[in-house]
Amino acid sequence: MRSRFQKGLDELKERLLEMGGMAEAAIELAVDSYRKRDGRLAQQVFERETMINESERSIDELAVDLLAMQQPMATDLRFVLAVLKINSDLERVGDLAVNIAQRSLDLAQEEEVEVPVDITRMSAAVSTMVRRALESFLSAKAEVAQAVLEMDSIVDRMKDEAFVNLVAQMRQNPEQVRQYLDVLLITRSLERIADHATNIAEDVIFWVSGADVRHNARFSQEPDSDAPRRE
Amino acid sequence: MRSRFQKGLDELKERLLEMGGMAEAAIELAVDSYRKRDGRLAQQVFERETMINESERSIDELAVDLLAMQQPMATDLRFVLAVLKINSDLERVGDLAVNIAQRSLDLAQEEEVEVPVDITRMSAAVSTMVRRALESFLSAKAEVAQAVLEMDSIVDRMKDEAFVNLVAQMRQNPEQVRQYLDVLLITRSLERIADHATNIAEDVIFWVSGADVRHNARFSQEPDSDAPRRE
Repeated sequence: MRSRFQKGLDELKERLLEMGGMAEAAIELAVDSYRKRDGRLAQQVFERETMINESERSIDELAVDLLAMQQPMATDLRFVLAVLKINSDLERVGDLAVNIAQRSLDLAQEEEVEVPVDITRMSAAVSTMVRRALESFLSAKAEVAQAVLEMDSIVDRMKDEAFVNLVAQMRQNPEQVRQYLDVLLITRSLERIADHATNIAEDVIFWVSGADVRHNARFSQEPDSDAPRRE
Repeated sequence: MRSRFQKGLDELKERLLEMGGMAEAAIELAVDSYRKRDGRLAQQVFERETMINESERSIDELAVDLLAMQQPMATDLRFVLAVLKINSDLERVGDLAVNIAQRSLDLAQEEEVEVPVDITRMSAAVSTMVRRALESFLSAKAEVAQAVLEMDSIVDRMKDEAFVNLVAQMRQNPEQVRQYLDVLLITRSLERIADHATNIAEDVIFWVSGADVRHNARFSQEPDSDAPRRE
């Protein structure tokens, strides 16, 4: 039988994954609202964000309660701390989906222009990073998290390419500057979502390995016999 | 005599305030590098950010050690959790100072243009928010933190005004689109620093009052006899 404490940890994990699902759905809706220039989809993103905010608050409370009442040690403590950080990252992903939806609403009111940026491709890469980061959390696999870190530079490159192409378009079509700016800000939001996926992956590595991988520290410096072992 | 645990909490507070000072200095240097179009100042921002990252890691370790070894309860637990969150916000402020410095470097290489945005005024407002947020942490005063939350909308308005003015300039001077874009991205970074100051203020309120003020929840819903009393 699992202890009350173990049940608390399980519930925390489940609730965080649920919130991850909401954040993923918000990104997808936001990008769809851009592709279809559909204000109703943008509206749905705003509603999802409210739900994500509520979810963040209740997960935070649950995590703090577990820390206060159960005083977990070692791996369990790191797990709860990782949940708190991932929770905050997912909430920001919700905010960024809202930013994208707002830019889509703005675009829907302007004359349509040809966009020299493949938002579909970029958002697919970003969504993959978020999904893999959540998978690494679910499976407690540092190597899956590590793969997320490696994808970040691909998205960064897409963002830089988009910048150059959009500046060129703005120079040629100054009348459409606003539309190109909207698209530019969408690429920035997507890139920031990728950063949050990276943060989540780092937090998973912190949890399972106990080492701090942020700022390019090596995560495998010291073996930690305390970390959960999985295949 | 203060216990070893109390000393740990004091050290945590001191180190976090030190890090706050570094983050404030990074913002100032970054804005100076913009105003003077000075690449050496931008370079100094990059160096500061490395220090800020190191500081973040060591504060995180100290906080996790305190949680693991001392298992604090109630207000002390909330304090350590607030430190962890504020620490992460300050680290991102460092990243955003780097973003500003990078845009300044870009601007220094381009033909100089007249900028229809008062970056000095905007950055003064943002720096004030960061300073007050840190003051609220130092003094454990929820009302100082509350004042920070109220300043956020002023900075948001500055950002929106800047957007409109910059779009107009880009339309009129398409050759200088890149410079205006750099300035636009600087205003976005400043606004995001203001968001982090807001997060810090919310975390201070969470610590001293025990209630969750995020997402417009009222922070004074329930009196918390456990919160430190000052004044």
